[in-house]
Amino acid sequence: MVRAAIVGYGNIGKASYEALEAAKDMEIAGVVLRDKTKAQEKGVPAGATVVEDIRELNSVDVALLCIPSLSVPNANEKNAAAHLLALGINTIDSFDVHGDAMLNLCEKLDTAGKKHNSVAIIGAGWDPGIDSMIRGIFEFSAPRGLTYTNFGPGMSMGHTVAVKAIEGVKNALSVTVPLGQGLHRRMVYIELHAGHEFSEVSARIKKDPYFVKDETHVMQVEDVSALQDMGHGVHMERKGVSGAADNQLFTFDMRINNPALTAQIMVAAARASLRQGAGCYTLPEIPIAHMLPVTREELIRRFV
Amino acid sequence: MVRAAIVGYGNIGKASYEALEAAKDMEIAGVVLRDKTKAQEKGVPAGATVVEDIRELNSVDVALLCIPSLSVPNANEKNAAAHLLALGINTIDSFDVHGDAMLNLCEKLDTAGKKHNSVAIIGAGWDPGIDSMIRGIFEFSAPRGLTYTNFGPGMSMGHTVAVKAIEGVKNALSVTVPLGQGLHRRMVYIELHAGHEFSEVSARIKKDPYFVKDETHVMQVEDVSALQDMGHGVHMERKGVSGAADNQLFTFDMRINNPALTAQIMVAAARASLRQGAGCYTLPEIPIAHMLPVTREELIRRFV
Repeated sequence: MVRAAIVGYGNIGKASYEALEAAKDMEIAGVVLRDKTKAQEKGVPAGATVVEDIRELNSVDVALLCIPSLSVPNANEKNAAAHLLALGINTIDSFDVHGDAMLNLCEKLDTAGKKHNSVAIIGAGWDPGIDSMIRGIFEFSAPRGLTYTNFGPGMSMGHTVAVKAIEGVKNALSVTVPLGQGLHRRMVYIELHAGHEFSEVSARIKKDPYFVKDETHVMQVEDVSALQDMGHGVHMERKGVSGAADNQLFTFDMRINNPALTAQIMVAAARASLRQGAGCYTLPEIPIAHMLPVTREELIRRFV
Repeated sequence: MVRAAIVGYGNIGKASYEALEAAKDMEIAGVVLRDKTKAQEKGVPAGATVVEDIRELNSVDVALLCIPSLSVPNANEKNAAAHLLALGINTIDSFDVHGDAMLNLCEKLDTAGKKHNSVAIIGAGWDPGIDSMIRGIFEFSAPRGLTYTNFGPGMSMGHTVAVKAIEGVKNALSVTVPLGQGLHRRMVYIELHAGHEFSEVSARIKKDPYFVKDETHVMQVEDVSALQDMGHGVHMERKGVSGAADNQLFTFDMRINNPALTAQIMVAAARASLRQGAGCYTLPEIPIAHMLPVTREELIRRFV
């Protein structure tokens, strides 16, 4: 059995609990909260062990970091990945900032993991995550060509947080709608703080770096919470060339509950972490077989 | 540069040549034929080195086995995978018999590879191959549920060969048509040998083990070659559960030139073979990153 700790208990933490409970080869070591008196309010099941320091839990193999992305690399956060790796605990996160931030995190955790003989798997969600794997499969199958990743329709966490930070916004929801070729429309629904003019707030949103490059529509509503659902999706497509054959067409499409899928992928990565050498990995660097609870014989019979 | 030999020069051999030529990190060591006087007739490019024994080629890292599937494990075939592994040459095949045959091949080549410090990658095509990877991603993303693999429309090599072996058949083409839920219709087009009754030949085809379980339609045509095209496809779907969230929906679809895709995947596997420890692997056991000609930094920037 793989013993996993859940660090943080928002949407992803709750979904991780459910995914771990459903996995026959995994065991929940406990839930780590900043303030364990809040366990009930956060919805942690009554039977769960709740601690404020992961070292209070027995023999944790791996920690699922269900904390905000920006806390994962933050040295001031006591549950940051590097600190847990230093305790010899593998870490799984769904860090979602592409590019330099991902590269920097990877280098930092690779060093920490190699020093303390532990394994970090980063970006273990759906994008980055399984979409990254699919982009890789698409490209080695048809190395010349174009891949488009089209998100939604679904709530964008990043854009929603960005809108909420804008002056005059009381509550917000930003929905991403795919327009094709990797272009997206942003549908922004806001509640206003008293004393603010809608047209001015709307103009501020459209000028925000998160929105300035995309077609953005802002609408005022009475109750943002009435619009929220956790469904999301992606439509990926590649048209390319294999050898000398043009017009090789590939598509990958999914319609999913966002936190449930993210948590499920983190659980699969937790399993895989025990089969990697010390260091840091992204999903395309891990064999798919390691993410499944199967022997080689089962793998070949059921999947190959 | 990875130096690759092409063993056999049918559709897959020719497509492998094209895929290797297009790959900047690969070099063609030469083409291995049973009878090298047939090189021109088979369409081997004039500039290529052609030999009858792979040992005549300089420093071959990896051999692409573009020979019939059943020759790959055949000890009497001098280019069988195990014989080349014994020479210290990695082997890539697109062996396509699922189940026991694949398991047996894997065990045998694992032993040969470990003994001679070489690597075999088996079933490196699209099914088995990238479809196997996708089935794995689908299942770790939603562990409870059903996956269906729907093939076609496109020519089935295995079924076409089976029809050609039936008494009275002069030439044949068997096209696979998807009916959904992994069920398939077989459309069989045949030219008859003189003196044979269509109804009798048709009845024999429908009773053949390759066809007896599927809805099969047999039609007589004047010229089978006029119907042939190398296009094929697959539509895979999974509906399943991530954690406690039902109705997670995934689809993967492709429309492709069959030998070109198979060869391109074999070339990617050839690249990956140099990054594995000795032994035998199927595609879900290999990190996707190893199949791409990228550094870790490029991988993270472009795919993650």
